[in-house]
Amino acid sequence: MPVIRHRLTSRILVGNPLGDPIERELCVYLPPDYDPDSARRWPVLLALVGYGGSGGMLFNLDPVGEPLDARLDRLIASGACPPVIIAAPDCFTRVGGNQYINSAGTGRYEDYLIDEVIPFVDASYRTLPRGQWGVFGKSSGGYGSIVLGMRRPEVFCALADHSGDANFELCYLPDFCGALDAFREAGGPAAWLDRYWADPNRRRSTQYKPLTALGMAVHYSPNPEAPAAHLRVDWPFALDSGEFLPAVWERWRAQDPVHMVDRHVDALRSLRAIYVDCGTRDEFALHWGSRALVRKIAAHGIAVRHEEFDDGHMNIPYRYDVSVPFLARAITGRS
Amino acid sequence: MPVIRHRLTSRILVGNPLGDPIERELCVYLPPDYDPDSARRWPVLLALVGYGGSGGMLFNLDPVGEPLDARLDRLIASGACPPVIIAAPDCFTRVGGNQYINSAGTGRYEDYLIDEVIPFVDASYRTLPRGQWGVFGKSSGGYGSIVLGMRRPEVFCALADHSGDANFELCYLPDFCGALDAFREAGGPAAWLDRYWADPNRRRSTQYKPLTALGMAVHYSPNPEAPAAHLRVDWPFALDSGEFLPAVWERWRAQDPVHMVDRHVDALRSLRAIYVDCGTRDEFALHWGSRALVRKIAAHGIAVRHEEFDDGHMNIPYRYDVSVPFLARAITGRS
Amino acid sequence: MPVIRHRLTSRILVGNPLGDPIERELCVYLPPDYDPDSARRWPVLLALVGYGGSGGMLFNLDPVGEPLDARLDRLIASGACPPVIIAAPDCFTRVGGNQYINSAGTGRYEDYLIDEVIPFVDASYRTLPRGQWGVFGKSSGGYGSIVLGMRRPEVFCALADHSGDANFELCYLPDFCGALDAFREAGGPAAWLDRYWADPNRRRSTQYKPLTALGMAVHYSPNPEAPAAHLRVDWPFALDSGEFLPAVWERWRAQDPVHMVDRHVDALRSLRAIYVDCGTRDEFALHWGSRALVRKIAAHGIAVRHEEFDDGHMNIPYRYDVSVPFLARAITGRS
Amino acid sequence: MPVIRHRLTSRILVGNPLGDPIERELCVYLPPDYDPDSARRWPVLLALVGYGGSGGMLFNLDPVGEPLDARLDRLIASGACPPVIIAAPDCFTRVGGNQYINSAGTGRYEDYLIDEVIPFVDASYRTLPRGQWGVFGKSSGGYGSIVLGMRRPEVFCALADHSGDANFELCYLPDFCGALDAFREAGGPAAWLDRYWADPNRRRSTQYKPLTALGMAVHYSPNPEAPAAHLRVDWPFALDSGEFLPAVWERWRAQDPVHMVDRHVDALRSLRAIYVDCGTRDEFALHWGSRALVRKIAAHGIAVRHEEFDDGHMNIPYRYDVSVPFLARAITGRS
Repeated sequence: MPVIRHRLTSRILVGNPLGDPIERELCVYLPPDYDPDSARRWPVLLALVGYGGSGGMLFNLDPVGEPLDARLDRLIASGACPPVIIAAPDCFTRVGGNQYINSAGTGRYEDYLIDEVIPFVDASYRTLPRGQWGVFGKSSGGYGSIVLGMRRPEVFCALADHSGDANFELCYLPDFCGALDAFREAGGPAAWLDRYWADPNRRRSTQYKPLTALGMAVHYSPNPEAPAAHLRVDWPFALDSGEFLPAVWERWRAQDPVHMVDRHVDALRSLRAIYVDCGTRDEFALHWGSRALVRKIAAHGIAVRHEEFDDGHMNIPYRYDVSVPFLARAITGRS
Repeated sequence: MPVIRHRLTSRILVGNPLGDPIERELCVYLPPDYDPDSARRWPVLLALVGYGGSGGMLFNLDPVGEPLDARLDRLIASGACPPVIIAAPDCFTRVGGNQYINSAGTGRYEDYLIDEVIPFVDASYRTLPRGQWGVFGKSSGGYGSIVLGMRRPEVFCALADHSGDANFELCYLPDFCGALDAFREAGGPAAWLDRYWADPNRRRSTQYKPLTALGMAVHYSPNPEAPAAHLRVDWPFALDSGEFLPAVWERWRAQDPVHMVDRHVDALRSLRAIYVDCGTRDEFALHWGSRALVRKIAAHGIAVRHEEFDDGHMNIPYRYDVSVPFLARAITGRS
Repeated sequence: MPVIRHRLTSRILVGNPLGDPIERELCVYLPPDYDPDSARRWPVLLALVGYGGSGGMLFNLDPVGEPLDARLDRLIASGACPPVIIAAPDCFTRVGGNQYINSAGTGRYEDYLIDEVIPFVDASYRTLPRGQWGVFGKSSGGYGSIVLGMRRPEVFCALADHSGDANFELCYLPDFCGALDAFREAGGPAAWLDRYWADPNRRRSTQYKPLTALGMAVHYSPNPEAPAAHLRVDWPFALDSGEFLPAVWERWRAQDPVHMVDRHVDALRSLRAIYVDCGTRDEFALHWGSRALVRKIAAHGIAVRHEEFDDGHMNIPYRYDVSVPFLARAITGRS
Repeated sequence: MPVIRHRLTSRILVGNPLGDPIERELCVYLPPDYDPDSARRWPVLLALVGYGGSGGMLFNLDPVGEPLDARLDRLIASGACPPVIIAAPDCFTRVGGNQYINSAGTGRYEDYLIDEVIPFVDASYRTLPRGQWGVFGKSSGGYGSIVLGMRRPEVFCALADHSGDANFELCYLPDFCGALDAFREAGGPAAWLDRYWADPNRRRSTQYKPLTALGMAVHYSPNPEAPAAHLRVDWPFALDSGEFLPAVWERWRAQDPVHMVDRHVDALRSLRAIYVDCGTRDEFALHWGSRALVRKIAAHGIAVRHEEFDDGHMNIPYRYDVSVPFLARAITGRS
């Protein structure tokens, strides 16, 4: 069955600070046995892509790999996975991606997902009711999954966090020197971002660090009073001298899943399934982030399925072969 | 207008030596003003993707870049490009891509394009007649474009070769050490290729060199009498000792565009437009390949539009902003 | 005049915690006009090499570069530099280098320099008296120079800090993922260090990060009560989970030159010359460390000569062409 | 016993084409039991360093590694190696190193070694007579060792070739794109070389490929009639278009040890010991060069000790622990 492409017009994103579109694509995968006229209801997962992506890319043609719809068709046909609906929203922004939180820097994307995307899917398809959704994603999408799972237990009952941002001192600080260099050369973060969008090639290796640092800063330490040239952000390093600024960093740390766990124990305990995995050669140290996160959760006596595998951060959608069936079974109660 | 996705069943590819599918996708982009009921005819370009790709990937969702259909819509709307049809075939193979030639190692892909894809498009759409097609592509697709332009002037009147394989000593030989290492470790090229396809991640950096060397060897020096463990290929380096084997290499050299020029002067002279470009930091030395190729063509007094730009080999579809209008204008006679 | 190689037997280093030798080489460069029988006295500089080095390496044969003695002979012969004595001590340790501080983890190397090396040189050669010494070095040796200059103004009147460790969040934290990975694989830091010394090649690229992280930790956060398997160090990241431990990190931060400045303003003000430089492409972000450091010093109205140059961290002894004459002139009062 | 540093004044190198010095350092290591007044004679090895080096560097201070004199003292003290003299000449040139052959491009360095260095050592020390010398070296020094062993069996009876240049298509061609780029940017090879020597840092990563390509070209395809701007070299790639030029390449190939073997079978057969090794991850593909070379020699029924080890091309002097005792025993007849 083909992937259905919807266009949603958001009210929540109206007036978002980056001027990003309010009309957004939403892709919905339906399992082969889906029948809109049936009385049956299907489990449904929210899929959150990594930084730089948009939900629809999960279904892009790829003869070397396997698009998500082909993957699911195969898993379901073999019996490895119960039939499941997947909703993949677009949350791309001018700063190159999304962490799937409400932020004064980017907009209310958590609310967009919870209050517009999910209700739309529930209204359009025969899904299991709110409260039984699952959420999964990789990298920034893994971050979004664990954070939404902790903050919205009334919506989600299962989550999978693949190589998700965590233990921010290890995963983010190594990018900052390259970012500071690039901002200095361009005349500041706002000038750098303008130049980025004016460049016809936005996948140069030199762009990765400034774009990531900038994107995270806009999410984690926005400040509407900060200079426009600074992108209205408080930076954790002084842009002119590079000095580390601990007070700003504390704002980032507060949004590190490792440190959010203790504030969301009840929510985590209420979930039916928590899945965390990461490649042991993750280029952004997220295998350590995953370990720290899992340790924090497990310290409360909460079960986590934690897996590691011999790979890095990129090109690992084959891990959905493990996580998606795990979530679908947890939701449907089939083991 | 959406991209039309056809599925063709090839007769020419039946029994191809790699056991690749004979049912193939063909994507067709139609310009906004296309009208099947008009008496008008539109220029049409064959689009050949690089190694590892399939034509449909040109239209993949990409919020960071610009899919080919959005690019063409924009160029046509602005008047930068005459309305043009683009046909993007799938020629992916078990060796990871295609050079778009007839080869005893892969199959008769040149014939597939000329005798099945193009006739199908001509029959299905209001194209300018055979003989007025253009062809363009990048990397292996650039190679295919220059080679088809030289060999099939009765079909094509214009070509664009972006960063196309050329000057093989510079572009291919540097991959061979990594390939020989990988084959040795795996137990030979055939064993390596089996292992590659068994790996859920087929974009590991360690795979690039063996896959490329293997793919080129299957195209350029196949030998049905060679051992199956060697993939029925004569290798330009002894697989056990690494010794360079000049006699095999001569077979590759004969298929180097730089050395094909002198054998196809009349064909090249008959074309209305030849476009060659490459980034000056091409990681595969193809800026030198392009220079050598252009010099050979120009030595015969044939005009070539040759451009260089400050970039590498990857993420350069923005160059189609230059080449596609150039070809479309040459075909339609508008300047 | 040849470089004089002494062997000193230290009392201060007796019983050092790493079991490093107490007999140490000291190399002394004498200027061409040096005359032990003259009544004249020469300015003298303490030279501190970077991590992994020993003072005598400054004089190693190098046809591609220029050993320090040849450099000084040239600078002095041309009149660019006043005649100057240079004393280059060996402070190599089992953890691969030295930060030139007293540390419970390595031994009392600051005391060794101040109370044994300098008195030995003053007693053996016709140096300007204590209080008029200069100190210079690169990387860890730059760190040692700025720290000794701040802490020992009764000994030094001039310092040059080339690409010295500073702003530790930017320069050290990026090494930790690789270090944690290596320790985990080896069975802990002590096991890793044993394996390092058992390896006949101790310059593998994989060794750099664990060795550096380990070396810095032994210097900055030693704890004699910590497990031997942890090298009797408190680690700023949990070795099992990777969690960042701010309390340990604060001990590192207290030894960051950027944060030492405010505690040593009088000492810095008493110096005749402070020189700081760094390449703008320093691989360890030390150009930002230098900027942060210079800004802190300058905020107190203290003059600093700050230079930047277009290079990275390695192979930059040509910068001594600038710093050594600057120090020698400041000491001798010639401009 | 200290290493003895001689300065030789060469007559053979007078008027060498690169204008390199004719006064040259020669370092001689003497074993602990060496006694100039004894009637005994000691075996002696010629040590040839890699490109970019000079013989004396083998004895440079290195706390992380082990200088050659310390290594030999240890091997001899333990009984692993018979006492042996080692003579390490300086053959550094303006093109950054030496291949240890007579070349119209660099000078008669083979003659310098055979007719000046070796006679000087034989006259100065109690060596076993000419005909019983051994020769060993790494990289370009490995190349020199195998070539001298093949060409001068009247002088040498044993050789060790560590990671020596061989199978030139694999080891040299990958450097040429970077070289052509650099030459183009600088305005030609001669201009590039001037700029190289004017740069205070001559170890930039960008310099490696042009320097190596240039150095090899000056050795293998010099042409006194070629333009000075081309460094009086025939280049195997056209400097303006990058086109590969097979006729020039044949001149290189003729000097590839793999292809020299068949012309020097008698000489090789006359040797008492041939040792070849290489790391299996050699960055210049020399593990394949070694394999091809060994296979060629062994095809004549000549014994070769061939070893491989898990390392790359750099920082591998620990392999002398194997080769030097092997040569010394072969020369002295002790097993």
